Amino acid sequence: MDGTLLRVMSYESSVQFKLIKNYGSQGPRLGQIYTQRGIVNTPAFIPVGTNATVKAMSQDELKELGAEIILSNTYHLYLRPGHETIKTLGGIHKFMNWHGPILTDSGGFQVFSLSPLRKINGDGVTFKSHLDGSTHFITPEKVMEIQGLCGSDIAMAFDECTPYPASREYTCNSLKLTTQWAKRCLDVKNNNQALFGIVQGGIYNDLRKQSVEELIEMDFDGYALGGLSVGESKDHMYEVVYYTTPFLPRDKPRYLMGIGDLLDVLEAVLAGIDMFDCVMPTRNARNGTLFTSRGRISIKREEFKTDKTPLDPRCECYTCKNHSKAYLRHLFISREILSMRLNTLHNVYFYLNFFKKMRDAIENEIFDSFKKEQFAILQNNFHEG
Amino acid sequence: MDGTLLRVMSYESSVQFKLIKNYGSQGPRLGQIYTQRGIVNTPAFIPVGTNATVKAMSQDELKELGAEIILSNTYHLYLRPGHETIKTLGGIHKFMNWHGPILTDSGGFQVFSLSPLRKINGDGVTFKSHLDGSTHFITPEKVMEIQGLCGSDIAMAFDECTPYPASREYTCNSLKLTTQWAKRCLDVKNNNQALFGIVQGGIYNDLRKQSVEELIEMDFDGYALGGLSVGESKDHMYEVVYYTTPFLPRDKPRYLMGIGDLLDVLEAVLAGIDMFDCVMPTRNARNGTLFTSRGRISIKREEFKTDKTPLDPRCECYTCKNHSKAYLRHLFISREILSMRLNTLHNVYFYLNFFKKMRDAIENEIFDSFKKEQFAILQNNFHEG
Repeated sequence: MDGTLLRVMSYESSVQFKLIKNYGSQGPRLGQIYTQRGIVNTPAFIPVGTNATVKAMSQDELKELGAEIILSNTYHLYLRPGHETIKTLGGIHKFMNWHGPILTDSGGFQVFSLSPLRKINGDGVTFKSHLDGSTHFITPEKVMEIQGLCGSDIAMAFDECTPYPASREYTCNSLKLTTQWAKRCLDVKNNNQALFGIVQGGIYNDLRKQSVEELIEMDFDGYALGGLSVGESKDHMYEVVYYTTPFLPRDKPRYLMGIGDLLDVLEAVLAGIDMFDCVMPTRNARNGTLFTSRGRISIKREEFKTDKTPLDPRCECYTCKNHSKAYLRHLFISREILSMRLNTLHNVYFYLNFFKKMRDAIENEIFDSFKKEQFAILQNNFHEG
Repeated sequence: MDGTLLRVMSYESSVQFKLIKNYGSQGPRLGQIYTQRGIVNTPAFIPVGTNATVKAMSQDELKELGAEIILSNTYHLYLRPGHETIKTLGGIHKFMNWHGPILTDSGGFQVFSLSPLRKINGDGVTFKSHLDGSTHFITPEKVMEIQGLCGSDIAMAFDECTPYPASREYTCNSLKLTTQWAKRCLDVKNNNQALFGIVQGGIYNDLRKQSVEELIEMDFDGYALGGLSVGESKDHMYEVVYYTTPFLPRDKPRYLMGIGDLLDVLEAVLAGIDMFDCVMPTRNARNGTLFTSRGRISIKREEFKTDKTPLDPRCECYTCKNHSKAYLRHLFISREILSMRLNTLHNVYFYLNFFKKMRDAIENEIFDSFKKEQFAILQNNFHEG
């Protein structure tokens, strides 16, 4: 990393991407995203802070663990506390007292997955709040207004998350809408906020390619693959990722939305993806599933009742340095809040550390052996709860 | 505080009490309890860690906030994870990684308040677990065995928590049992563990006096007032406390069990009580009721929706230094774990700080004016949720 570069770097755009290394036929890629609020090393894992909080963690803990960027959900922030409220409070960074970069998603996926009703017309989407059943109508312009008032560093264009399975005809029409909406988002792009386009097209390679081409034409600050991990097989997902990424510009960050199974991450990084977000480490933590250097563990298992050893003797996190499996099991069985705290801390540390090791492997051009080694670990020693 | 004394102090008994100051007709008293694991300044507040965790807090946070002793519940530890398990894991301090003093209660109150069934005979109590309905029989000897294997620094004698209302006849018989059980506990007192007797007698002054005299005769390391705050009026409670304390030995710590409303604490300290435990700061925190230098606040109130100011501008806690009322309200309304964390941290800080200020007031012989001033604050500005 060249210190001089950092100092002379001007923030002409809201984010700049520097591709540090890219070897092999497609990926893996090592890069850095420069934002006004700090640098994000890629491949990056983005912890999910749905309601302007990464569940069970404090912002200081996130920082200490080395999180360089977090995600918050536009759909949730819009419904509660409301984007005007966040604006009044000085924007999302001040609101939650996290001063690193924040990415807000577009709400497209949540409208698709959470709302009991979703009615799309060309102009926008009518949906019902999962909180109180109230009806809302949002448009691409509205989504940009919400993200603008929240003041995130990276905004996502509003898209239709195409369901799976979907016919070619449905997917084709859905894609048309996503492209039109992307254009409308770009037309009202906010100052000091990067805007990423979202590639759709279901599992149809030619539609994915068409989507990429239409978005590149508009020139976004980054490109995301959306509509994946919505029910299709892993093979379908990998095929789309491998097929699509070569069409994406090399000099812009690439973001695989909502993906976080580390097996998928390894494949996607090999295909040239730079950014990932997922609730897997945090949600699994609360459910008692913990990641270790030897595989996953379900902490509630009887065998840990008198186990004095840490969850992972090779782990340097607070949980492993301070507590035994027996205590973690007790807290989990007793449904104690400290269980969710210690488990989350460990899993997020594990994820961020995994990504750090992955970046080192790319730096040292040993990604293939890293991937092979990690595949074996991630698939083995799985203690189903 | 005389530094020399500390160094020459020998730990002949499992705890030593030093009365530093006692002025006025009864109390207030300033003191120190010396244990093998540290000094407890009195009047002391003891945060409650029912399941070997003070809900929502880490042990490091408790230490940073200045907690000098915590309480854990014998009844809960016995049922889960079990006292043998805790023994196998090296005792409760190692189990939970808290190396300051720990007091375990006797389980008498929990058998009384939590069990769907309670059947007393002279030998012990049959009760049903609130967790799985299983039937258990415990005796004073068993309670001492549980506390001994857990390895707490201060154990409590097994008592019958007399219900309210109770006839004089019931109370009298109940007290007989408590006295017999206290003797049986003392007969099997554990090494390296202090044992406190529990004064019962309901709201009958003469029975309270009788209870004190019978316990003093046996010579315990400290004396607790039990069976209060179980439904009787505040006046009844204060009367029992004011009436009973003068009969207690001056050179032993006095503990008012389960009391923590700060109005009650002020009265009890004036009456000469040294130790208090209560779930009030932690439970209220989880329910969104927060203590401030201007009175209690219900954080869910609409008026805080866009309030950028801290909960208490005069508070030095992490929550007040880092977050606004608006964010705390949002987290509470969203039922986020961070809400319970930040609220608990604040309330426990408030309590420990209150006790520190109270000790300073005793030291400076201005407890009367402190009590008057705090009474006004604690009663005013109450925002009911």
